[in-house]
Amino acid sequence: MVIGGDAAGMSAASQARRLRGPDELEIVAFERGHFTSYSACGIPYWVGGEVDGPDRLIARTPEEHRTRHIDLRTRTEVTEIDVAGRRVRARDVDSGAASWTSYDKLVIATGARPVRPDLPGADAPGVHGVQTLDDGQALLDTLARARGRRAVVVGAGYIGVEMAEALIHRGYEVTVVNRGREPMSTLDPDMGRLVHKAMEGLGITMVNDTGVTEVRTGGDGRASAVVTADAVYPADVVVLGIGVTPETSLARAAGLPVGGHGGLLTDRAMRVRGHADIWAGGDCVEVLDLVSGQLRHIALGTHANKHGQVIGTNAGGGYATFPGVVGTAVSKVCDLEIARTGLREKDARRVGLEFVAVTIESTSRAGYYPDASPMTVKMLAERRTGKLLGVQIVGREGAGKRVDIAAVALTAGMTVEQMTALDLGYAPPFSPVWDPVLVAARKAARAVEESG
Amino acid sequence: MVIGGDAAGMSAASQARRLRGPDELEIVAFERGHFTSYSACGIPYWVGGEVDGPDRLIARTPEEHRTRHIDLRTRTEVTEIDVAGRRVRARDVDSGAASWTSYDKLVIATGARPVRPDLPGADAPGVHGVQTLDDGQALLDTLARARGRRAVVVGAGYIGVEMAEALIHRGYEVTVVNRGREPMSTLDPDMGRLVHKAMEGLGITMVNDTGVTEVRTGGDGRASAVVTADAVYPADVVVLGIGVTPETSLARAAGLPVGGHGGLLTDRAMRVRGHADIWAGGDCVEVLDLVSGQLRHIALGTHANKHGQVIGTNAGGGYATFPGVVGTAVSKVCDLEIARTGLREKDARRVGLEFVAVTIESTSRAGYYPDASPMTVKMLAERRTGKLLGVQIVGREGAGKRVDIAAVALTAGMTVEQMTALDLGYAPPFSPVWDPVLVAARKAARAVEESG
Repeated sequence: MVIGGDAAGMSAASQARRLRGPDELEIVAFERGHFTSYSACGIPYWVGGEVDGPDRLIARTPEEHRTRHIDLRTRTEVTEIDVAGRRVRARDVDSGAASWTSYDKLVIATGARPVRPDLPGADAPGVHGVQTLDDGQALLDTLARARGRRAVVVGAGYIGVEMAEALIHRGYEVTVVNRGREPMSTLDPDMGRLVHKAMEGLGITMVNDTGVTEVRTGGDGRASAVVTADAVYPADVVVLGIGVTPETSLARAAGLPVGGHGGLLTDRAMRVRGHADIWAGGDCVEVLDLVSGQLRHIALGTHANKHGQVIGTNAGGGYATFPGVVGTAVSKVCDLEIARTGLREKDARRVGLEFVAVTIESTSRAGYYPDASPMTVKMLAERRTGKLLGVQIVGREGAGKRVDIAAVALTAGMTVEQMTALDLGYAPPFSPVWDPVLVAARKAARAVEESG
Repeated sequence: MVIGGDAAGMSAASQARRLRGPDELEIVAFERGHFTSYSACGIPYWVGGEVDGPDRLIARTPEEHRTRHIDLRTRTEVTEIDVAGRRVRARDVDSGAASWTSYDKLVIATGARPVRPDLPGADAPGVHGVQTLDDGQALLDTLARARGRRAVVVGAGYIGVEMAEALIHRGYEVTVVNRGREPMSTLDPDMGRLVHKAMEGLGITMVNDTGVTEVRTGGDGRASAVVTADAVYPADVVVLGIGVTPETSLARAAGLPVGGHGGLLTDRAMRVRGHADIWAGGDCVEVLDLVSGQLRHIALGTHANKHGQVIGTNAGGGYATFPGVVGTAVSKVCDLEIARTGLREKDARRVGLEFVAVTIESTSRAGYYPDASPMTVKMLAERRTGKLLGVQIVGREGAGKRVDIAAVALTAGMTVEQMTALDLGYAPPFSPVWDPVLVAARKAARAVEESG
């Protein structure tokens, strides 16, 4: 039995079905919405008009799952898990009818919910999250009816900057109000500063270090402005991009273990701790950060899919594990690419690691090759051991996915000195003769040596 | 003392100078040509008109080196190394005057020379290699005077396909005559086949499995056609791209150790084996292939620069090593990107490794995202251990540099099962939710499991 019909849940169901036929394993999946297996990460591009939605964002429809002998029940919300009784209570969202269904093995994939600020007006029409396809459609409806062209995005993380881009594409005048010192708090502030400058260059108004105090509504009851301590920003649409929190209310009520970030706690096989026949994955769990050695909550489709694959294999009688993450993420705002992996300065400090941090400027291609674009790479390495701790990259085309080099090196526990010898692909259209990541590694290796 | 003023030699000189000032270390460098520290890899793009040359291809001029207190003697050819006497004999190319100069420490960076086929007409005017800036200028002179627009490229390796692209950009009708079964013999033939098809799609005529028997000359003594056993290909210009061989005649004559591929043999610190005060690096040495455990010859600027860095550090009294290569290379022909790292099927067989090989099709971005382009990834993994052995990628934008993921994983000795959990950058504009390399790793891991 699977609770939640998106990436983690349906990957688990599909993988279990691949291993065990309908005669061997019955699979029931509950999804409270209309859709299954869709790319929430694609919503900003749908809103921006770059992708036709919502159909193209759906990897597999409920019907397709049913064809593969998965008893998928959409518009059906699970309201209670009875762990001792091995059953869940589910309610038909439309009719309200509810009943108990028994399970032998349970997969919890309830995802995350957007953080809603506790502010006057935050629930007004015209204020939108972008977590589900229904959210995306609602936002597009607001854009279609909006009279003006002023948008305010609250929050400047991945969702915030991607939505800023989407609204720019829609021809909006975009203001981003951000509580942090710089946008992209997943970067160190010095790297976030580069994003800030680039966003301003795109015509986006960045308001940093500023909390929202109220969403003001107009005569029609719809959001009309975002208010801060210092100013009022008129808005024909307000988008909330202030992050998500694990959706674990069901699991908590059932007494399942939840960690400090609000996510379910699992073992390496994605089994909920202390429960041999309950697995959990995707945005509702905490994951091990292999660099810091601590648990984190990261809502990202690529992890959810991997979790689903592992859970489906184990629930299907095989063996697989999810070792953890190194915290890789890429994003873009128009042609600016932003990437990070591993620890920021403050993450390293928090776990007691002393480090060197270096920043270099290089280019995406050989300097003489057309369209070589500038790229800034910041690299952190542990003092004494020289182990790579983290990389942040801001640049144009070709910058973002270079972070994968560092992601693999982090996973392998490489030192920056070892990295200087990496045999990376070189040809003038692809890289300078020293790839920017290698330039950073060389500088970091020298800094480690000098730090003693 | 440095012999050879390009990447390896001048990187070594510059790094040694960084560590030791002019009062501590005297540095003399001999270069027989006019230029120093240039990007030979950039020549195809100069010929293609994408890059202004030759100046832009020069990273550091002789004058700039001299400013840094390196006694650089251009147009000066070393004709003999007297190892026992610790001196070299050098000749002024223009005046012919020769003399002996003593050294305490010697760096040999004599590079490689293009393989010239032993064919009638191969030395005729209008037949061009593209190894040096002078070669590039000579080819451009031929193109400027050519009456027609027919070009024949002999060889379909990196230089061959890059020159085919350059000549397409120049408006030429291009025929590539290739001795191998498919172009890009650094790939397995099934992947080379994809390059073949794509090159045909670009309007390039590919003639495979065919050796050249003669370069025919016209009444003016210039090359006019390339002749094979089956056909005559009229040519207003002929470009040779049939590879290079280490330039080690000086070193051989001096009794220094040379390996089976004709390159100098060094230790990990890039010292010539058995000679404490002689280093060698760049295109004139053999390097350890970390995957096969055997020596190879790879002429590539990125290795030459790394060697130079290591040599300069050691010659300057520090300590550095070059661990070896995994055989990464990227190239492109128009918008087709071609990449490889590690072992091909035949390389694995040659060293007695049993393996599984899988090939997958995926896309550069999320399938629904604009400009998602198809990508084919082939992956080899060792039977039983599941260790990654090699990756080959053919695709469009975003394909080439993905090989770096595999290059780092190979260096770290990862298994394909470990790779399935890699935390690679994901967002719809950058990758499908499972990166193509992960899709290949999953398929390879299953194949390893099934192979027993």
